[in-house]
Amino acid sequence: MTSLHPHPDRLLPADPAARAVARRLYDEVASAPILSPHGHVDARMLLDDEPFDDAASLLVTPDHYVTRLLHAHGVALDRLGLRRDGAPADPREVWRTFCAHWDAFLATPVRFWLETQLHDLFEVDVQPSTSTADAIFDQLADRLARPAYRPRALFERFGIEVLATTDDPADDLSAHRALAADPSFRGRVVPTFRPDRYLDPAAPGWANGLDRLAASADVDAGTYAGLLDALRARRAAFAAAGGTATDTGVPDAGCEPLDAADAERIHREGLAGTVSAADAVAYRRDLLFRLAEMSADDGLVMQLHAGVIRNHHGPTLASYGPDTGHDLPDVGGYTRPLRPILERFGTSETFRIVLFTTDESLFSREIGPLAGFYPSVFAGAPWWFLDSPAAIARYRSAVTDSAGVGKTSGFIDDTRAFCSIPARHDMSRRADAAWLAQLVTTHQLSEDEAAGIARRLVDEIPRSAFRLG
Amino acid sequence: MTSLHPHPDRLLPADPAARAVARRLYDEVASAPILSPHGHVDARMLLDDEPFDDAASLLVTPDHYVTRLLHAHGVALDRLGLRRDGAPADPREVWRTFCAHWDAFLATPVRFWLETQLHDLFEVDVQPSTSTADAIFDQLADRLARPAYRPRALFERFGIEVLATTDDPADDLSAHRALAADPSFRGRVVPTFRPDRYLDPAAPGWANGLDRLAASADVDAGTYAGLLDALRARRAAFAAAGGTATDTGVPDAGCEPLDAADAERIHREGLAGTVSAADAVAYRRDLLFRLAEMSADDGLVMQLHAGVIRNHHGPTLASYGPDTGHDLPDVGGYTRPLRPILERFGTSETFRIVLFTTDESLFSREIGPLAGFYPSVFAGAPWWFLDSPAAIARYRSAVTDSAGVGKTSGFIDDTRAFCSIPARHDMSRRADAAWLAQLVTTHQLSEDEAAGIARRLVDEIPRSAFRLG
Amino acid sequence: MTSLHPHPDRLLPADPAARAVARRLYDEVASAPILSPHGHVDARMLLDDEPFDDAASLLVTPDHYVTRLLHAHGVALDRLGLRRDGAPADPREVWRTFCAHWDAFLATPVRFWLETQLHDLFEVDVQPSTSTADAIFDQLADRLARPAYRPRALFERFGIEVLATTDDPADDLSAHRALAADPSFRGRVVPTFRPDRYLDPAAPGWANGLDRLAASADVDAGTYAGLLDALRARRAAFAAAGGTATDTGVPDAGCEPLDAADAERIHREGLAGTVSAADAVAYRRDLLFRLAEMSADDGLVMQLHAGVIRNHHGPTLASYGPDTGHDLPDVGGYTRPLRPILERFGTSETFRIVLFTTDESLFSREIGPLAGFYPSVFAGAPWWFLDSPAAIARYRSAVTDSAGVGKTSGFIDDTRAFCSIPARHDMSRRADAAWLAQLVTTHQLSEDEAAGIARRLVDEIPRSAFRLG
Repeated sequence: MTSLHPHPDRLLPADPAARAVARRLYDEVASAPILSPHGHVDARMLLDDEPFDDAASLLVTPDHYVTRLLHAHGVALDRLGLRRDGAPADPREVWRTFCAHWDAFLATPVRFWLETQLHDLFEVDVQPSTSTADAIFDQLADRLARPAYRPRALFERFGIEVLATTDDPADDLSAHRALAADPSFRGRVVPTFRPDRYLDPAAPGWANGLDRLAASADVDAGTYAGLLDALRARRAAFAAAGGTATDTGVPDAGCEPLDAADAERIHREGLAGTVSAADAVAYRRDLLFRLAEMSADDGLVMQLHAGVIRNHHGPTLASYGPDTGHDLPDVGGYTRPLRPILERFGTSETFRIVLFTTDESLFSREIGPLAGFYPSVFAGAPWWFLDSPAAIARYRSAVTDSAGVGKTSGFIDDTRAFCSIPARHDMSRRADAAWLAQLVTTHQLSEDEAAGIARRLVDEIPRSAFRLG
Repeated sequence: MTSLHPHPDRLLPADPAARAVARRLYDEVASAPILSPHGHVDARMLLDDEPFDDAASLLVTPDHYVTRLLHAHGVALDRLGLRRDGAPADPREVWRTFCAHWDAFLATPVRFWLETQLHDLFEVDVQPSTSTADAIFDQLADRLARPAYRPRALFERFGIEVLATTDDPADDLSAHRALAADPSFRGRVVPTFRPDRYLDPAAPGWANGLDRLAASADVDAGTYAGLLDALRARRAAFAAAGGTATDTGVPDAGCEPLDAADAERIHREGLAGTVSAADAVAYRRDLLFRLAEMSADDGLVMQLHAGVIRNHHGPTLASYGPDTGHDLPDVGGYTRPLRPILERFGTSETFRIVLFTTDESLFSREIGPLAGFYPSVFAGAPWWFLDSPAAIARYRSAVTDSAGVGKTSGFIDDTRAFCSIPARHDMSRRADAAWLAQLVTTHQLSEDEAAGIARRLVDEIPRSAFRLG
Repeated sequence: MTSLHPHPDRLLPADPAARAVARRLYDEVASAPILSPHGHVDARMLLDDEPFDDAASLLVTPDHYVTRLLHAHGVALDRLGLRRDGAPADPREVWRTFCAHWDAFLATPVRFWLETQLHDLFEVDVQPSTSTADAIFDQLADRLARPAYRPRALFERFGIEVLATTDDPADDLSAHRALAADPSFRGRVVPTFRPDRYLDPAAPGWANGLDRLAASADVDAGTYAGLLDALRARRAAFAAAGGTATDTGVPDAGCEPLDAADAERIHREGLAGTVSAADAVAYRRDLLFRLAEMSADDGLVMQLHAGVIRNHHGPTLASYGPDTGHDLPDVGGYTRPLRPILERFGTSETFRIVLFTTDESLFSREIGPLAGFYPSVFAGAPWWFLDSPAAIARYRSAVTDSAGVGKTSGFIDDTRAFCSIPARHDMSRRADAAWLAQLVTTHQLSEDEAAGIARRLVDEIPRSAFRLG
């Protein structure tokens, strides 16, 4: 058995002088409240406040970072509880499989998050392995049965000040409203408007989605104008429920507006199932423009991420569904494709857009320079495949020169793994402290300036970028 | 009030052993003469030798690095003195606005340049802020009124051996000639041939530009052959005035030559205002090829930078003109598009081309390998959005492996902010010393070898790359 | 004369604490046997076991890394012995030219390899220079005349356990068979199936190549089906001769399969010399798909590298032939173009593919994420323009986060310079030790874990990735 004791100075620079500075900078923010303006936790989990089931369904099965790496190392997704039909996997067996492949996570950020959770939250002090799997499983079962491990108790323990969820515009937001109305829950949980399913009129299910949206908005979405009205109505409902932002993922950032008549024609063809591939793309780009226009009107912060191929492996999609680890990065780009939106709304005081990428070459080439001119553009934190200490360091170095720290978004955890939220924010705070310490020890910043930046990065900066108030 | 005292070892490595090496390497070159082969200072400023007006018009308004970042942080360009119509901004108010937003520059290279100038040149010892703005403004006013702060005195104080300006081919170079003829000015100020305005026959003003060029060259540019003759004549005039290089910026590096008849046809259509977008691109690519051919003939070093979208934000262009911070990087590329030029002139002894980029992914993928094979190709220094210590380190690491230090260009400051020239070269010398020290302390170079490289980087290498003699 | 004494700790971190860790990690693997699963040494050299001729023909003329950099610094390839017609160059003169330009290699990995070879293998203790050229040439002549410097003796001295060559499918593998049958040679030398010359039906020599292939396979390749059969037959022969892998280089990674009838039609047009450029591309992409299908059938590991423009400079190709330094990187990409192969074979247990690139932006954007989901995909080591300590560090940092160390390929030397093999593997081991030490000193790995990874990187990992057994 190998012990599990995360070092208190992990991720801070090795050099003693730099570490001392980094440690002080980290201490400034280590216990600061968590602002989580972009994530995928379900509000209903907090509303229901039921105990979590077991270690596997909490830490393994729903986390595509974990299942992806195990799959890459030869573990069939069936063994991780992901098959949608047939008998469910035995959680203990899933956990044993996970523990047997613990080495797959060595030197990855996933390992950092898991170790921190196991140790800090569940008081596990041995590394997962074949021989320790059952004991750890049982230890987590014991903890999860305790009231202190229910979602609301953890929410408070984690020090979460704001948690933004991600929600379909057709969602009635009843969970959010109920939570807000519940005097026994003091947390702030806000919805995020995610209209992706309405963007592609050639996609299966698009027309059905329109129906649901129309019903929720009480607006006829049979025309394009009707769809826009429905979206506007739902944005207002999201804002009323505390939402401050939208989130949109697109294959590319193209946003050329169409004539209204063309958009209406494609909309009709989408309903009739006769839309061409090229028209579907044109429609999506127009709708992205309209969403920006709505943000300029209502002030909801627009989050945009372009350049991911969703469900890259058809057979896995067929057997296991989406979000199973094979959404994979493609070449990105913003400067050219996003120009129509920025030409029109780039200097609007109400418009605000946060740009995320999985293509690091954009950091210094596009995202830093765009955020370094347009007052409306913020450089989104390293996201998804880039949410690691090494990538955070590359991002800071590449983006700050052009945009300054004030035009970055602050960390986002982007996770559906609720218990990993503190670990992810902690990693970010450590990585930023390491970056700032290096600027201090090379006399590019005074330590006072660095401490000020460290504090702003976890508070003022995300609060401003996401209009959290 | 926070004091402003740039640390003498800033940008050098934090580790004591590495810093000692870096300090020695830096000391080798800290006071070496400045070769500035690529910049945007106006020769007439040195000819006239008038006092500078005030802090704002010297350090803020004309520097798009500064105004860009302030604009990104929410300051309207009006408040920075950039509006072209209406009443001019009050310089003191501009300066106050700048000082109030000093934090926008934290951790950026702009801050480094500004601090160095304020401290080393103007003896300012407090950080700009709302409370210090007026005192600093007055202190600069005092200094700028002194003879020692006139352009020629500063030129000498800065230790500038060569300063290359950037000039339209139609420029009569009278300022350069007068300076060269003035026995009281011993500096070397040479023009650089920048033919960009003749490349796009679909651009407004292209035909008018041809007229001016034709007049200056005394050659009829009504035909394409005439334009080429006019350009050749002006290149000869630039060379006679001491010029050693040309500079060209293009949206992409395509350079497929056309048949002469096609080029003539497009030229005529350009004059008639009927040229198509595709033909305009073909014309520009042909002309780029012809410019390379001229360089192979006359030996003027060709500088090329591809991949920037100029005037990204139309409304800002309309209100404030070009060079106001929204020229923004696009995806770059040289290996494939530049092939026609390299096929034809790549091993010519007279041809020489320096490749710049704002797309860092080109450093190891294209620019290093091209400079590592073609004797005519030099890897241009980190430029524009990349002229920071962090990007310089990435460039050195990415390019040297493939090309060796001998095929790099030496630092270029690329600035229209005259007083920032020493600070920019100083940053480069420090960053290179830091890079070399790291190679020394990991035993990849001896300290003697590193010192030799440090000296070559500020002398022999730019002298050779730009044929400064 | 400057002495040549490579430091025992070169490439290890400068910081004393990190260096101590790195030194221990390096010591774990410094003398481990060499697995060389991807290279370009000729098996016949080992079969014949003749003495090497001289320093120039051993270290300069055949190594395009060396001649490329000298050419970039102004040395005509004629002077390096590369001209294909006319009188051969005098080896001593070639060597003098090389030594006179020794500074061209400063701070490049080529210098590291050459120094290590000269010092460790040939006991040279002075730096090459004009004044030492003759003495070094003579010292190498003395050593090369000794039996201990014949290829087989060096093979053993180098500690090579497996050496994979690269071979045309039409190669009869007689050298491999003779070596395997020779009881006096105990090394393992295995062929690698490199079918590149059959991929482009528009290339000169394609039809002749088919004839040779048909003859070697005893299968009629006059039809596309026949070509596939011939390739299958030769793959079986390669496997029988110990081969475990194939290697394919393509301009892009496109692999859309064609209808059989279309493929047959293009094949016929290729034979008739009437194939269009578009059809040639379609054919190549189909054949890449078929090669993947064969790998899924026979289990030979597929190595793929896309995105290099071969023979960029036509005049150099005409005078000096291929592999003379002007194969130059273009923009790469795998996520999108490789999808057909991965859709079909990505989760096949027999299929395995190693992805190489010269475009670093792919490391974190595509190669890491692909290897981090598909069990069949391995992230190929930094290759060609990227096989330097700095690029290795960037690769480790960029790929590991997404894929884990277990899905990387292990180092490949990719060299035709036989004597550089130990130096290249040594560089890799040092660079990996430096990377791991940094993870240890920032508490991301325990030293035990790092030592385990160091050992796996030179043994289990390449053994698994290349199915070396």
